[in-house]
Amino acid sequence: MSLEQVFASRTSQMKASEIRELLKLLEQPGILSFAGGIPDPNLFPAEAFSEAYARALSPENQAVALQYSVSEGYLPLRRWLVGQMERMGVPCDVDNILITSGSQQALDYLGKLFLNAGDTALVEGPTYMGALGAFRAYEPRFDRLSVNGNRPAQDYADAAQAAGGKVKFAYLTPDFANPTGKTMDLRGRESVLDLTEALDVASIEDAAYQALRYDGDSVPPILALEVARKGDLEACRTIYCGSFSKTLTPGLRVGWVVAAKPVIRQLVLTKQASDLHSPTINQIVVHEVAARMFESHVGTLRQSYGARRDAMLAALEKHMPEGVEWTRPEGGMFVWMTLPKNMDGASLLAEALRSEMVAFVPGSAFFADGAGANTLRLNFSSPTVEQIDEGMLRLGRVLRGALT
Amino acid sequence: MSLEQVFASRTSQMKASEIRELLKLLEQPGILSFAGGIPDPNLFPAEAFSEAYARALSPENQAVALQYSVSEGYLPLRRWLVGQMERMGVPCDVDNILITSGSQQALDYLGKLFLNAGDTALVEGPTYMGALGAFRAYEPRFDRLSVNGNRPAQDYADAAQAAGGKVKFAYLTPDFANPTGKTMDLRGRESVLDLTEALDVASIEDAAYQALRYDGDSVPPILALEVARKGDLEACRTIYCGSFSKTLTPGLRVGWVVAAKPVIRQLVLTKQASDLHSPTINQIVVHEVAARMFESHVGTLRQSYGARRDAMLAALEKHMPEGVEWTRPEGGMFVWMTLPKNMDGASLLAEALRSEMVAFVPGSAFFADGAGANTLRLNFSSPTVEQIDEGMLRLGRVLRGALT
Repeated sequence: MSLEQVFASRTSQMKASEIRELLKLLEQPGILSFAGGIPDPNLFPAEAFSEAYARALSPENQAVALQYSVSEGYLPLRRWLVGQMERMGVPCDVDNILITSGSQQALDYLGKLFLNAGDTALVEGPTYMGALGAFRAYEPRFDRLSVNGNRPAQDYADAAQAAGGKVKFAYLTPDFANPTGKTMDLRGRESVLDLTEALDVASIEDAAYQALRYDGDSVPPILALEVARKGDLEACRTIYCGSFSKTLTPGLRVGWVVAAKPVIRQLVLTKQASDLHSPTINQIVVHEVAARMFESHVGTLRQSYGARRDAMLAALEKHMPEGVEWTRPEGGMFVWMTLPKNMDGASLLAEALRSEMVAFVPGSAFFADGAGANTLRLNFSSPTVEQIDEGMLRLGRVLRGALT
Repeated sequence: MSLEQVFASRTSQMKASEIRELLKLLEQPGILSFAGGIPDPNLFPAEAFSEAYARALSPENQAVALQYSVSEGYLPLRRWLVGQMERMGVPCDVDNILITSGSQQALDYLGKLFLNAGDTALVEGPTYMGALGAFRAYEPRFDRLSVNGNRPAQDYADAAQAAGGKVKFAYLTPDFANPTGKTMDLRGRESVLDLTEALDVASIEDAAYQALRYDGDSVPPILALEVARKGDLEACRTIYCGSFSKTLTPGLRVGWVVAAKPVIRQLVLTKQASDLHSPTINQIVVHEVAARMFESHVGTLRQSYGARRDAMLAALEKHMPEGVEWTRPEGGMFVWMTLPKNMDGASLLAEALRSEMVAFVPGSAFFADGAGANTLRLNFSSPTVEQIDEGMLRLGRVLRGALT
């Protein structure tokens, strides 16, 4: 007996990621790891959550908190998000918002909403590994998005048609991207809008890290730029995916999607059919904690993560040999490193673990097209400032060794 | 601009359910509703949850409770479920279990795992509406499952092939089914195993209501029967979906799947790509509350819901006119009523709302093939015993009026 023979064809694209398997090993004690991508648990607003859960489960509230609720999401949380989006230049109402179980679920639903097998998803190279994973379940073709506007729309459309489908969307992480840490400038954002408009397709703006800016001026969300162009969210093709995972907590799995109402309506049906709704009580407590302290808590995070970003950039200056380059992110959780062309991130990891017990993520996993062998991702949100300096010292030694 | 033009073809099958839209109206004050399918919130073990959340968020536990966790699910909860499954005749280990966000998510994942567009899902008529919704996203064909074994396997296979696909699974709710309240006997269960074995496909056992038995002898799960046949879960084709939604609380969205390891491994990948993991803290508190009081709490539910079931059956005897038939469920939350052939449940509902302010769900929504116009579903877990008697009195009056 083997049920594998009756698995759907999509499962052939849904393989265990070698990188994810590897990451499990990297979190072992004794290893100084820059491989994770998770918030520092010491910075969770745990006391506020504890109070909020107690209140949600008080005799007058418990019947609601523990009961089924609507697929659209908890109304007071959606109302609070309306205010947040408005401050970002996106006037909307509650019917433009769906609560999801983290922004990962939004990516799954958007793949489900748009992709027939063989359709094309435009993605950056590198891009968020989890987005590639979510989309792959719908058997797409990936094409590399060139953000500077120097590849004509017709060229994307022709390539998609030749592959037997259509371009359906461009997926972007414009702010402090995972894995590069880079932020897309205003011109880049406008060029994405031009492209998706010329193709008449959606743009998916993954804003998971957007609140975590440590310096520099914030750039408006792509959705805000499109609202400014069109005057009305209902005329916009951009779908904004937000998350509380990097700001308040990832463990409660609360994110949201903002889009024109026909898109939200179809996503609500998708959610109804896939898990009915996100946990009621978690939405209630996230609303309470966000309403009470979102801005001040994000301020705390910015200070703490900003200091670690500074420490990492300083340590890289101090310890890295010539020929190695890295990004200088204005926010987020990652620095992206480019090694000399002939070097291989995966081999380097093996060596780094063996000789220095230091870990990172080889960069090729973030490319849909297998590029990026000579790249790697470093996380600075989990380690302390001291660990960062020690870790970069060790990584520098590994690199020096490999370069000689 | 209309993004609908680039929606995937599957969205044409994912329409808003008229019934679900209707149900929203039915929960208005003043209406005596038997339309819902939700637990009585007065029976939630809210105090135990409150204590468990407080403990999960204590200084020594909060870093884990609020952090990302593994896609497989919280290990102590999976261990506890190993014990539960063993008591039901299904020896397994933690790698045979995936935690899902309610059993609804398991149904979505199983659709994703098995169904290519055009493949056939065998479902009962009537069956759980949410299963039809979950599977429809993968563009299947539905065929009516005949449980008594009098339709040969080859006939199902031929029909599936003629429709351009393959039979991939049979989906069943063997215990106190939603909507019928019926329980499949041992012979029915064995015949399902014979059929899925002859077809060499999966059987999906949705056990959402299994713990809620009020009288009669329990029948072993289909998976237990298959383990007894084969001697080893790894040789089994049955996939068991459990849920805490009807026993502890639906608002936390915690369910589980038990199956052979290759199936669980692929479902873990599916979960990783779709929402990373179910909320960490909810899994922790469900484990604590289940370990502390699952059996005693289910005992309380059985008493309370059993009394309401008794009240509904007594009220139906008292108030229903001749020509109307109904099921006598041994558990669960529903009684299924069959009206004379020429009557229509939807028209009756309109009349019942107008003249008596009493509500139920017309039965046709539970059929994949549009049958069942003369059926309806009555819920007895939400209303009180007094409301049940009053409601059946009113419904009896409506039916008498419609029958004259």
